[in-house]
Amino acid sequence: MRAICISTGNELLLGQTVDANSAWLSRRLAELGVIVSEHRTVGDEAGAIARVILQAAQEADWVIVTGGLGPTPDDQTREALAEAVGSPLAEDPTSLAQIEEYFARMGRAMPPPNRVQARLPKGCQPLANPCGTAPGILGRLGRCQAALLPGVPSEMEAMFEQHLAGPIAEAAGGRAILTHTLRCFGTGESQIGAMLADLMQTGRNPAIGTTASEGVIGVRLWATGDLPEAARQLLQESATEVRRRLGVLVFGEGDQTLAEVVGGLLRKRGKTLALAESCTGGWMAKAITDVAGSSDYFLRGYVTYANQAKTEVLDVAAELIALHGAVSSEVAEAMAIGCRERAGSDYALSVTGIAGPTGGTPDKPVGLIWLGLASPDGVATRELRWNPTLSRESIRSRTVQAGLNWLRLVLLDAANLNQPKKVRP
Amino acid sequence: MRAICISTGNELLLGQTVDANSAWLSRRLAELGVIVSEHRTVGDEAGAIARVILQAAQEADWVIVTGGLGPTPDDQTREALAEAVGSPLAEDPTSLAQIEEYFARMGRAMPPPNRVQARLPKGCQPLANPCGTAPGILGRLGRCQAALLPGVPSEMEAMFEQHLAGPIAEAAGGRAILTHTLRCFGTGESQIGAMLADLMQTGRNPAIGTTASEGVIGVRLWATGDLPEAARQLLQESATEVRRRLGVLVFGEGDQTLAEVVGGLLRKRGKTLALAESCTGGWMAKAITDVAGSSDYFLRGYVTYANQAKTEVLDVAAELIALHGAVSSEVAEAMAIGCRERAGSDYALSVTGIAGPTGGTPDKPVGLIWLGLASPDGVATRELRWNPTLSRESIRSRTVQAGLNWLRLVLLDAANLNQPKKVRP
Repeated sequence: MRAICISTGNELLLGQTVDANSAWLSRRLAELGVIVSEHRTVGDEAGAIARVILQAAQEADWVIVTGGLGPTPDDQTREALAEAVGSPLAEDPTSLAQIEEYFARMGRAMPPPNRVQARLPKGCQPLANPCGTAPGILGRLGRCQAALLPGVPSEMEAMFEQHLAGPIAEAAGGRAILTHTLRCFGTGESQIGAMLADLMQTGRNPAIGTTASEGVIGVRLWATGDLPEAARQLLQESATEVRRRLGVLVFGEGDQTLAEVVGGLLRKRGKTLALAESCTGGWMAKAITDVAGSSDYFLRGYVTYANQAKTEVLDVAAELIALHGAVSSEVAEAMAIGCRERAGSDYALSVTGIAGPTGGTPDKPVGLIWLGLASPDGVATRELRWNPTLSRESIRSRTVQAGLNWLRLVLLDAANLNQPKKVRP
Repeated sequence: MRAICISTGNELLLGQTVDANSAWLSRRLAELGVIVSEHRTVGDEAGAIARVILQAAQEADWVIVTGGLGPTPDDQTREALAEAVGSPLAEDPTSLAQIEEYFARMGRAMPPPNRVQARLPKGCQPLANPCGTAPGILGRLGRCQAALLPGVPSEMEAMFEQHLAGPIAEAAGGRAILTHTLRCFGTGESQIGAMLADLMQTGRNPAIGTTASEGVIGVRLWATGDLPEAARQLLQESATEVRRRLGVLVFGEGDQTLAEVVGGLLRKRGKTLALAESCTGGWMAKAITDVAGSSDYFLRGYVTYANQAKTEVLDVAAELIALHGAVSSEVAEAMAIGCRERAGSDYALSVTGIAGPTGGTPDKPVGLIWLGLASPDGVATRELRWNPTLSRESIRSRTVQAGLNWLRLVLLDAANLNQPKKVRP
């Protein structure tokens, strides 16, 4: 089984947007045992899209087209499919009803331009959109199935899972490509590469590769086998070996986040958390509350951006700030203690630092961060020093991850709270 | 002048990496007056790459291929070009010397596998790589120039500028494509499409298209002209017309965020802000502090996730929560008032709602949000109702944007704080 992903949009050809939809689809298709042989991106022009659909249909069993299903004149994918299959567009009453219902749920009448979204080539099937106005379309070109999905990632992903994943998996029926990702934090990609060097040799099955993003290292394994069971067995053996070598550097699997893992540990241990953030400005709380159900263990957060806020909200003595500076071990410690007392939580994590791009001094450069962690067992601080040439966003993002990872290690008892030490970025 | 960008790599077809090189090249080519008609991505297989190069050479004046020039066996682009131009690979002494020199600069001997990087098809030209080992290659297929560049973005970009930008600009002979994006919030994409329908007709110059992402609508304009000055003039006239029609729906340009615009307004007016967040859990504070220099106007944030936190931290009466529920106009109002008093800020924005996926009731479904805004002029609340099928992430993200947009309109005096009204998502 082969598939080709086609993305549409002038914004892609002008470089204003990067096509992430094709990568997402490719990952899912590989998991379902389908080889993606090509990605193609074309502009908002029905003739060009039709031509590429027809070419792709010669080479693939599935063609998945994203984008161009909106209500505006630059949305040309419906027309393109009509041209490719040689059937005119006609309004589909079921789709129209669904679009009207979508607007009704929001207490609005359907704007007239949205009516065009109910049109599809005769003989094609509509694919209901559970979270937007644009229905997808499924058509057939010879032996090839062509599926049109919206370009909005959340809608595209939901519709792929709802309408396409099942039929594609069934049709692929057998030779499986299974993938598995372990997610690590606490050392660099090259260090992890060295720890796994012999497993990463080309030609090995499962193949292993690494990726790095804001301090999180993904170790990806992909195994092929004639039967899913054989591939799964291979994958599991290699994953076990990787875990054995990397130990607590591995924090999770798949798309698990550090916040999810920390949340799971807090819930399991029946403990609560509060946060006191300065330079991360609420990002750590945002990460914790990204997880549904986080109200079970997350009590509150304080974003004490101004010094006065640190004093008034967290009882950090103004003299302490004057003496050591807001970015110091002493202030991080006082923030964590004040936060834990005010919130009445089991754990309180604090962060203060210089995210840049300005505000650094020779003594306290951009990238210097102090974390504090107060718990029933005491309080500790840790210093982070990120490369000052990193962007503000990277410094903040990595700081959030490093703070959550420290909490994870403490909850795992792998880090001793009473022995502060410098975490290596 | 037309160009096609081809990227190579199994990691792209497996969805493990997103192709950002084609977007970068497309932006640069547009600036040089070249229309990019397609992006194609193929795997690490010489035959497949050769086939796509040959097809692209039929349709474009320039074909730019990235990736597959490394020293390992999965680097197949050199072979592919040899196959496409019909000339065998041969070692190029100049390139070999440059690779050896590159290693010598690092105090190392060239590892034997790197020698293969000096090979190129007879009749093609090497393109020196100033910051890596892989030379590029320039070849000719009929009227089409094919350039091979490494996949590492920093090397690819440096080599494009050094070897290709000049000749391409010269060949394009001045014809310029300029782009401009206006960013809008407060209505749907179809409504904006209707307001601009006549400007969005195909064939118009500048062309106009829209994109939507989490409630933010991008209106993209791109103008072509024989001279950059002519294109710039056209672009400016259309942008002015779009702004006239959309009014305060337009919040910014390019990649400006609502948080940047709100921050700019607060700074200009010398006002300060504090935030009280429940369901957004710190995301609004994160968005505000994403902006460097936000400490000038942002004082503090409270993430009052638990009801007890709302009472203790923001003085929201427990009886009020018991009577109306935590997600209510009354509680949003009390949160905003309490936040403003505690923080001593000019403005205080509060948010409470049900982000889901669980926690909804028939009366208060997932997606119901109340915003509160306290200011020197009084306090008001607004209700948002997002589609309950949206993801937790989308509901939270759109709520952050809607809150910031309300504050923007108040700061612009375009929204009357004392007349609460339902904001249409």
